[in-house]
Amino acid sequence: MNDTFLRACRGEDVEYTPVWIMRQAGRYLPEYQKVRAGVDFLTLCKTPELAAEVTLQPVDILGVDAAILFSDILIPLEAMGMKLRFHENKGPVLGNPVRGAGDVERLRVPEPLESVPFVLETIRILRKALSGKVPLIGFAGAPFTLATYMIEGGGSKNFINTKALMYREPEVFHSLMRKITDTTIAYLSSQIEAGAHAVQVFDSWAGALAPDDYAVNSLPYVKETVKALRPFGVPVIYFVNNCGGLLEQARASGADVIGIDWRVDIGEAVKRLGGKVSVQGNLDPCALFSSVDVLRLKVEDILKKGRTARGHVFNLGHGILPQTRPDMARALVDIVHELSRN
Amino acid sequence: MNDTFLRACRGEDVEYTPVWIMRQAGRYLPEYQKVRAGVDFLTLCKTPELAAEVTLQPVDILGVDAAILFSDILIPLEAMGMKLRFHENKGPVLGNPVRGAGDVERLRVPEPLESVPFVLETIRILRKALSGKVPLIGFAGAPFTLATYMIEGGGSKNFINTKALMYREPEVFHSLMRKITDTTIAYLSSQIEAGAHAVQVFDSWAGALAPDDYAVNSLPYVKETVKALRPFGVPVIYFVNNCGGLLEQARASGADVIGIDWRVDIGEAVKRLGGKVSVQGNLDPCALFSSVDVLRLKVEDILKKGRTARGHVFNLGHGILPQTRPDMARALVDIVHELSRN
Repeated sequence: MNDTFLRACRGEDVEYTPVWIMRQAGRYLPEYQKVRAGVDFLTLCKTPELAAEVTLQPVDILGVDAAILFSDILIPLEAMGMKLRFHENKGPVLGNPVRGAGDVERLRVPEPLESVPFVLETIRILRKALSGKVPLIGFAGAPFTLATYMIEGGGSKNFINTKALMYREPEVFHSLMRKITDTTIAYLSSQIEAGAHAVQVFDSWAGALAPDDYAVNSLPYVKETVKALRPFGVPVIYFVNNCGGLLEQARASGADVIGIDWRVDIGEAVKRLGGKVSVQGNLDPCALFSSVDVLRLKVEDILKKGRTARGHVFNLGHGILPQTRPDMARALVDIVHELSRN
Repeated sequence: MNDTFLRACRGEDVEYTPVWIMRQAGRYLPEYQKVRAGVDFLTLCKTPELAAEVTLQPVDILGVDAAILFSDILIPLEAMGMKLRFHENKGPVLGNPVRGAGDVERLRVPEPLESVPFVLETIRILRKALSGKVPLIGFAGAPFTLATYMIEGGGSKNFINTKALMYREPEVFHSLMRKITDTTIAYLSSQIEAGAHAVQVFDSWAGALAPDDYAVNSLPYVKETVKALRPFGVPVIYFVNNCGGLLEQARASGADVIGIDWRVDIGEAVKRLGGKVSVQGNLDPCALFSSVDVLRLKVEDILKKGRTARGHVFNLGHGILPQTRPDMARALVDIVHELSRN
């Protein structure tokens, strides 16, 4: 197996910089669109053969150094008791938002083997299909990020309900975080037991918090999650979106790799993170709307700065956009491989 | 006149920390809603008596230390040749987006006295009405932020068109920035000549750029704008939204005050900005959905850290949200005044 990705996560020597792309299995690929044409998003997530099929697509099409399970961070919330739907253009809707103590009490901490057998089955299929190729990354949402969806009832611009609950009823907020964290630890543990070689924790909305609020309302639950996964011995990546004000704290997460968005200079980020973690990132997803020449310059700069870290996994600084041309994604992977070999 | 705000901008001694609130004249105030009920947004901006009336409301209702002209950053774009409309819930729409060289060529650099006489008249009315009260802040959008609206045709999530133009046709992008910058300098100069005591440049979308892209595509035009205003001798505030990755560069803007959003710790921001500028900010607008007790703790922390700067103007880290209770905004102003006097 090509284990370059795993070695970079651990800060071991590599022959070139490994690369994968957040949302690499997704709407920008015609091959994905073809599968999706016959089935809605939630059904795709819950049908192991299909989820495995779209997971594998970018491995062959792009030549990336890791596969990431096709799923959605909100999947484990259904078994907690949330009513989850995906609307074609509006994104996810959680029909029964959590707004008070009673709502939290009614939530369950589900057992993954019973609640998400389809995810574990997808991982088992992928382990066989990928043997000898590249590692498989499992994932979950970070507890705070999941809480925002549960409280807001979907995506949000300003997170008013989340923060109001956090400020006005901290006990209720923390009892919610307790249940989400327990669910997340069990969920990620079961993914690793089923065969994931590494896991990524997505804190997509951590960056909406002021640093002092992040310290109390997100970071402790991430630390606990990372610590609980330590006995498995697999690399844990912690992606902190909009991390510019949070990097010094994020290094305390205990993760092997800190994933960063494109709004910070990766060289500065390495300094602020200290020397003991690897970094992942961080090309602006919009750079794929430039030319191959511009792309080369930008990749070269990120690779140069990434070399100052213990280890560097190349990635975009956020998910690849649906409007991206697949040939530009392929060019990115090739350029990263070519330039980092030199 | 209460010139505490102007003195804090210049880093001079103050008896207490001055405070104003971004979007302090706006939808959260019933008094504003009443004026707005009879007139659409654009007409309100263009009717000096009404614009002056809503500008004055928060001065009396909240007790803030500065008034800010009621207008919109997109107002000067109409005379450049952009078709501007405001939709009730969708926000601004620019009907003829700039996508190529021909579009840029057709744009004019208008003369403020002819193109925005209503803005200048509003300022003259306010100068009289405010005499002996508080200073008046004029404002404009930063050139890059204005460019995003012109290129995208309105607000945007990912700024694909803006960045694609920036990467693929840099000459076209920079010729657009040239015209916007010239327009902005003339616009702000005319506001100061009409009586504004200070001006704020809003770079609301600078934070969507990777730092190396910001260095080339936003900062130089801000520097030029600030420099052109220097002869007037009034304080210039540069608000950089989502500034976590940009602070070291923002200090090179030459502005007297750097306005920062709530996603960074203001104490860290002061360190990264160096000692030669004042800072403005940076309470999370959602903190106004907490209790007065929580608010006091958060204000106290920001005031303490703000004291490490040359000067500190208290503000939210972004515009006040329409859902905010006016009594919480009033409480904020009182708490800032009370705690900073000690």
